[in-house]
Amino acid sequence: MKVEYINPFIQAAQSVISMLCSVQPKIGKVHLRNMPFSADQVIIIIGVVGKIKGQVCFEMSENTAKKIASIMMGGIPVDKLDEMSKSAVAEMGNMIMGNTSTIFANQKVNIDITPPSLLTGEKIEVSNKTTTIVVPLELDGVGNISINIAAEETN
Amino acid sequence: MKVEYINPFIQAAQSVISMLCSVQPKIGKVHLRNMPFSADQVIIIIGVVGKIKGQVCFEMSENTAKKIASIMMGGIPVDKLDEMSKSAVAEMGNMIMGNTSTIFANQKVNIDITPPSLLTGEKIEVSNKTTTIVVPLELDGVGNISINIAAEETN
Repeated sequence: MKVEYINPFIQAAQSVISMLCSVQPKIGKVHLRNMPFSADQVIIIIGVVGKIKGQVCFEMSENTAKKIASIMMGGIPVDKLDEMSKSAVAEMGNMIMGNTSTIFANQKVNIDITPPSLLTGEKIEVSNKTTTIVVPLELDGVGNISINIAAEETN
Repeated sequence: MKVEYINPFIQAAQSVISMLCSVQPKIGKVHLRNMPFSADQVIIIIGVVGKIKGQVCFEMSENTAKKIASIMMGGIPVDKLDEMSKSAVAEMGNMIMGNTSTIFANQKVNIDITPPSLLTGEKIEVSNKTTTIVVPLELDGVGNISINIAAEETN
């Protein structure tokens, strides 16, 4: 996948997260990941089709997910990831991907996204069909989120 | 989602599985699933967009996945789910969904699918944005596979 296709994901994550969490995420070193990769406990998966085709996994610890859920729900404390708080966390992934689509559309690159699925578990390992590009995000006071982009350009 | 949208998934699963595994899968009772649902150890996730939008999870035990991998790889024994055998199992999901798309296309219902992602882990729980419809499949001598369809019709 072209490197310039990574930028819309980064821009969207920065803009959505800084709006929602009032914190500007620090972008770590974008890198490739070997398969299978061990994932953190909470994963939001959103599919992409169109000019780019694949799956995007947002990955974070349970603790980070709880903090994000709390922020998304107006600051109420979240001690446990129940369905409402999971839905709030999934919505953040949905908003980032929606924003990514808009940025791509402005560049005449059309993509369509699926609704988010959220998975929790232990010892999770993910295998994708294509190389996975990782964008690490560090949210001060919230935690780390990795965006794992396993997608390729279509003809 | 309309009930008639479930049939192409069932038809495709029957036709692909009977071709690959030389066994006609028994279709169990199609039912709705509450969220989050606890999933078995191996999950293949494939996104769907178009007239229907969502994620489809094929779910099975590690043992069943090993048997399917072995069948897909011409009968060589599979003791461990390595990347090659995972890729073979994911390909079965991909073929079923490809076949599902073709059946839908013949009915003038256009959908597009993402490549498969395969996840393994323990105590996996899945939350979807929409109601999840489950199609249980029983493959004699191989094991059980559940097709979890979390999708809705778009306008």
